[in-house]
Amino acid sequence: MTFNDPQFADALLELIEGLGTLAFAISGIRHAAEKHFDWFGGYVCGFAVAIGGGTIRDTILGVKPFWTTDIRYLFVTAIALFLAIILRKRMKKLNNAWFVFDTLGLAFFTIAGMQKTLTLGFPFWVAIVMGCITGVAGGVIRDVLLNNEPVILQKEIYAIASVAGGVLYWILLVLNFSITFTVITTFILIVLIRFVAVYYHIQLPILRDED
Amino acid sequence: MTFNDPQFADALLELIEGLGTLAFAISGIRHAAEKHFDWFGGYVCGFAVAIGGGTIRDTILGVKPFWTTDIRYLFVTAIALFLAIILRKRMKKLNNAWFVFDTLGLAFFTIAGMQKTLTLGFPFWVAIVMGCITGVAGGVIRDVLLNNEPVILQKEIYAIASVAGGVLYWILLVLNFSITFTVITTFILIVLIRFVAVYYHIQLPILRDED
Amino acid sequence: MTFNDPQFADALLELIEGLGTLAFAISGIRHAAEKHFDWFGGYVCGFAVAIGGGTIRDTILGVKPFWTTDIRYLFVTAIALFLAIILRKRMKKLNNAWFVFDTLGLAFFTIAGMQKTLTLGFPFWVAIVMGCITGVAGGVIRDVLLNNEPVILQKEIYAIASVAGGVLYWILLVLNFSITFTVITTFILIVLIRFVAVYYHIQLPILRDED
Repeated sequence: MTFNDPQFADALLELIEGLGTLAFAISGIRHAAEKHFDWFGGYVCGFAVAIGGGTIRDTILGVKPFWTTDIRYLFVTAIALFLAIILRKRMKKLNNAWFVFDTLGLAFFTIAGMQKTLTLGFPFWVAIVMGCITGVAGGVIRDVLLNNEPVILQKEIYAIASVAGGVLYWILLVLNFSITFTVITTFILIVLIRFVAVYYHIQLPILRDED
Repeated sequence: MTFNDPQFADALLELIEGLGTLAFAISGIRHAAEKHFDWFGGYVCGFAVAIGGGTIRDTILGVKPFWTTDIRYLFVTAIALFLAIILRKRMKKLNNAWFVFDTLGLAFFTIAGMQKTLTLGFPFWVAIVMGCITGVAGGVIRDVLLNNEPVILQKEIYAIASVAGGVLYWILLVLNFSITFTVITTFILIVLIRFVAVYYHIQLPILRDED
Repeated sequence: MTFNDPQFADALLELIEGLGTLAFAISGIRHAAEKHFDWFGGYVCGFAVAIGGGTIRDTILGVKPFWTTDIRYLFVTAIALFLAIILRKRMKKLNNAWFVFDTLGLAFFTIAGMQKTLTLGFPFWVAIVMGCITGVAGGVIRDVLLNNEPVILQKEIYAIASVAGGVLYWILLVLNFSITFTVITTFILIVLIRFVAVYYHIQLPILRDED
């Protein structure tokens, strides 16, 4: 079983997608807990983060939302709710794990969103926008549902990592690199940008008041 | 004219749908009034509650939204606005009526949403999610538009009644009961859960802070 | 080069659409600046105002969103962000210009939204709703994203100008006026209503509390 084994690669991708979905759902549930939502509200927020970005993408692209053919997203959200209730007092100690899973999810969903958009025949710049929406819009929906200002739009190098990955993906494909190389390199770039930005507290410039 | 008369059943269903739509629109307009929206803003909020859930469902399912072929939803919302303005000081005394109509609407829209989803060939668990979205998402849109935290996700046994109805619907059809029996039983269950929960102040557990 | 020259008319329409898009994007970015969003957040808000209404319309109507075949909306939003950063302290002095451009955009997008809806075979009252959504929903998305109460629903004669234009458009076409005459008259009516309402501080009645 090596990296060249397609079955291993498939299993690895499934694992990354599962961990990413779990981290996304957990982020929705934890934010809902801060606002004292009930269990159902927490589940809805978790599910919205887990599938929201991809659902907006699929709705805009005019295709059947991905989660309507795969019940596992509902299950993973249920696991996330279960973990958030059971491990309540230990969730903060696991912050590093959630951060890593969340970043894997951002990279995975960005690339998956781009590939789906390109497969449907849209131009590359639409794919970059859709990759970003796939990775990021769930978190925006979460903040809108919870009546918070979307933190992703305020100070985190999060969406920009997704866009940078999208641009690299485009360049590598134009330069005739293989799909496998392109995907792996893009994945690493998105994860790296996110890690470095959080570690060194790098932010984009803030828009200032007019006076 | 009996319950077995199809024309009577159709008229009854139309009446329930009309009262439900009216109650949904009125809930949007009353919440808008609390925030001192103008008449047009009230109309928009009312319309959003009345058609929002079904529109999200239809958009996700990829079909033409139901209200684009039936102008009556716009009319019912206009009636709701008219009532809310004319009966302003008496609206609170009518709270029990709105509550009953709203609950009829929840049950009706849940079942209608499920049936439409199943007709389009989706699996049962998608139908349950769509039934819940049809019954509940309008109220969430209302709260998002009005910059409130969605009350449905915080403390009411509302969406759960819809989900429980959806699960019962599934079980009864699997057990080969007739459609008529299934629909009536599901309708009664949803209404009962909602009434009992409100009467006895039953709530789901609340998600607690992490420390 | 006269008003009867089709090339001149096309160029004029492109100019109006461009200025309207620019004004919509700038309104999103300025509101984002008030909340101290970062540059990316400002760009997203600007883009959401510029393309949000038309995207909701196209998604509801079940067609490919207009901006996925025309990269210029992304460029105009970039220009808007550039202007908002460079001219930060002078933005307020330009308020009259933004107001005029925004009003041109409202009229243009309303009519474009109606025409697209009618072309797809929907009835006239759906076209009026869609014209209003095209012109107005971007601003509502902006306020929802920024966690503000939607100002359009509270006190401005803004959406009503769009609806009034839609009704006039309908009447003129029923009365067999030419498309050109109908479009120009509708355009002028929408702009006039908006100008007069702002100049004379005309508002719709406000919904009042229930006690």
